[in-house]
Amino acid sequence: MGNNIQAPRGTYDVLPDQSAKWQEIEAKIIELCRLYQYKEIRTPIFEHTELFQRGVGDTTDIVTKEMYTFKDRGDRSLTLRPEGTASVVRSFVENKLFGLPDQPVKLFYTGPMFRYERPQAGRMRQFVQFGVEAIGSKDPAIDAEVISLAMELYASLGLKRLRLVINSLGDTESRIAHKEALVAHFAPRINEFCNDCQTRLEKNPLRILDCKVDRDHPLMATAPSLADYLNEESQAYFTEVKGYIEELGIDYVVDPNLVRGLDYYNHTAFEIMSDAEGFGAITTLCGGGRYNGLVEDLGGPEAPGIGFAMSIERLLLALQMEEVEIGSSDALGVYVIAMDESAKKQAFRIVKDLRANGISADMDYTGRKLKAQMKSADRKGAEYVIVIGETELANGKAALKEMATGGQQEVLFADIAAEIKNKKSLEE
Amino acid sequence: MGNNIQAPRGTYDVLPDQSAKWQEIEAKIIELCRLYQYKEIRTPIFEHTELFQRGVGDTTDIVTKEMYTFKDRGDRSLTLRPEGTASVVRSFVENKLFGLPDQPVKLFYTGPMFRYERPQAGRMRQFVQFGVEAIGSKDPAIDAEVISLAMELYASLGLKRLRLVINSLGDTESRIAHKEALVAHFAPRINEFCNDCQTRLEKNPLRILDCKVDRDHPLMATAPSLADYLNEESQAYFTEVKGYIEELGIDYVVDPNLVRGLDYYNHTAFEIMSDAEGFGAITTLCGGGRYNGLVEDLGGPEAPGIGFAMSIERLLLALQMEEVEIGSSDALGVYVIAMDESAKKQAFRIVKDLRANGISADMDYTGRKLKAQMKSADRKGAEYVIVIGETELANGKAALKEMATGGQQEVLFADIAAEIKNKKSLEE
Repeated sequence: MGNNIQAPRGTYDVLPDQSAKWQEIEAKIIELCRLYQYKEIRTPIFEHTELFQRGVGDTTDIVTKEMYTFKDRGDRSLTLRPEGTASVVRSFVENKLFGLPDQPVKLFYTGPMFRYERPQAGRMRQFVQFGVEAIGSKDPAIDAEVISLAMELYASLGLKRLRLVINSLGDTESRIAHKEALVAHFAPRINEFCNDCQTRLEKNPLRILDCKVDRDHPLMATAPSLADYLNEESQAYFTEVKGYIEELGIDYVVDPNLVRGLDYYNHTAFEIMSDAEGFGAITTLCGGGRYNGLVEDLGGPEAPGIGFAMSIERLLLALQMEEVEIGSSDALGVYVIAMDESAKKQAFRIVKDLRANGISADMDYTGRKLKAQMKSADRKGAEYVIVIGETELANGKAALKEMATGGQQEVLFADIAAEIKNKKSLEE
Repeated sequence: MGNNIQAPRGTYDVLPDQSAKWQEIEAKIIELCRLYQYKEIRTPIFEHTELFQRGVGDTTDIVTKEMYTFKDRGDRSLTLRPEGTASVVRSFVENKLFGLPDQPVKLFYTGPMFRYERPQAGRMRQFVQFGVEAIGSKDPAIDAEVISLAMELYASLGLKRLRLVINSLGDTESRIAHKEALVAHFAPRINEFCNDCQTRLEKNPLRILDCKVDRDHPLMATAPSLADYLNEESQAYFTEVKGYIEELGIDYVVDPNLVRGLDYYNHTAFEIMSDAEGFGAITTLCGGGRYNGLVEDLGGPEAPGIGFAMSIERLLLALQMEEVEIGSSDALGVYVIAMDESAKKQAFRIVKDLRANGISADMDYTGRKLKAQMKSADRKGAEYVIVIGETELANGKAALKEMATGGQQEVLFADIAAEIKNKKSLEE
């Protein structure tokens, strides 16, 4: 780091020419969640480290390798949240939302998350997630509703190359049976696997299946599939979920290898991938699943849940790959030009008056000449330009010039805002 | 910390019944900044620690006592941002925004900030600020514009008990003259002051004036006022700023003791206070000022700036104290009740269809009886209720009941969304 300080590695700035896209996505999220009746919750940027150890799982990559953990001045171990579900469930328990008369409690959040990973396209150390959690129901219809909400957000923004992949991780009984089969499968040749996998065999053999190091080992392809170990109840649940998804007219594929990277999932797991060309190695836009038991693990009553999280950065990348334009910034309403210092206060008053009337307005604050100010009005896409000089000051009126047509008319200073409102209402 | 993990001390959750207020304030901010032509910038939650040491000032309380500083896994010293200006200026320099053809660059941000302080009403360890920065102009008119934007946000939300306090901190020459006078004033009796003030005398004597410990020492009241040390240029600048504020019709008082808690301010400094009864000890809603020189200090070219930051938590507190209600949550459009399991898929389809048509809709996901579902519809303020049972399934239509009037009419399942849209358009 030299004299100029840079943004920390793995982080970035959303610059003013990009922020309208973010605003549009967030407005869409708020609107869609209103239609689906999911209400916003906002949890702190950091939590007690223990929350993620217990809530995300202490054998996951996230918890073992990727967390930003530090002590505060009061010697508490705090961690910048690496994901949203544990925090939302913590809040659900702490604020006794399980006691609300209407269950499930349907929540959404957007905000930054933090994972210390090697930065690459679509994977930053600070990234923004939108997520929903429906807590308090084990109805398969709500699994489909949650999936539908995610698909609908992408569709409403204009994405077309989407692929929904689902799987069932089954209930506890099914998972134990599968776990035993996995141990029997990998144990004889576990010495051919990475150190992490050797630990995983004992602690959480399912995790071996998402190992990035050993993905090509021949035992991977022949590993026992969870699908073969689902008990009757788990199978019936999965069949119902699929039925509701079909009801919504959403295409999907079942991938028995989809296990998700977090410990807390059971039953329904899903990912939404982008099939857009040139999207790069990481094609998962959104991941989610059911987490019956997590609320109890974090000290609450029985309250089965399901949710998803999606990265806004990857959503933006997908929009770019599919060449969908969003966030067209509104043009400037009026640019007011003061010819000289004596006209400036009048220009300032007109700008103030326009803004007070809901019309965006701007002027020069760097003492530039008329020509430079006209260029500025052009670049800002001003709909109208007003020039105020000696004559205008003397007459108390100015020419209101419409940039698209070149037409202009004399208007009293006091009537400018009303005149523009009038023109706009005629256009509509 | 027992079995149940709580939110960290000094942080809090915005729960679903409160989040509509935040959404409304943020929507107002986006709209107002559009009118004033300030564009959004988003900087990371943490920065290199050095940024704040250089950009906020290493003798300030913020930097010496209140920062969340930690090492990441790559041994970088990072700090959760305690305020927004240093980050925005860092981004302005790093991304060469000074090279954009239209100067000043007018920016705004909203987001969480972090200071390790003793939590109390209106002062949390994680709090949310909205701020603007206009960088690249030393025109006194833009000082007034920035102040106007802050006042306008409060006014547009319905606050009335506001007080604008302004001061001039002068240019470098004036400040040096004042500093020398302060040293001469305090030095003879500095041993009667706290340790911090003794350090401040050497490093930054102006800081003594905001000491919370020694605020009642007799030398405080008689300290030389910066106003008496402003050189001609600084006085002229301040006169112009006041002229533009008057032009906007905004009342203000000049307080020569207003110095602000950050090192980087010069010339214009201002605060907006709440005079609402019962507001508590901390009445400052918003603070800001001019920071000519900061861009150069952080490695950029000459680019004089001015900005403010306001706490959203204190804004909410002021709204509460003035009994202004915001964030009325939209009522639910339609609640669809399935009488039994066989009707559920049809109910699910109708809910899906309504949402796809922009009408908010919900149903039960917990297998409750008709009566419990009716109560739910009531609590959610549903405008319409549809009940689907055996008869309805057989006929392919259901009664659409309008809750406000009690009136109902038979509608084919496929026509429900269209019928409601029709009714709404008639109402308008």
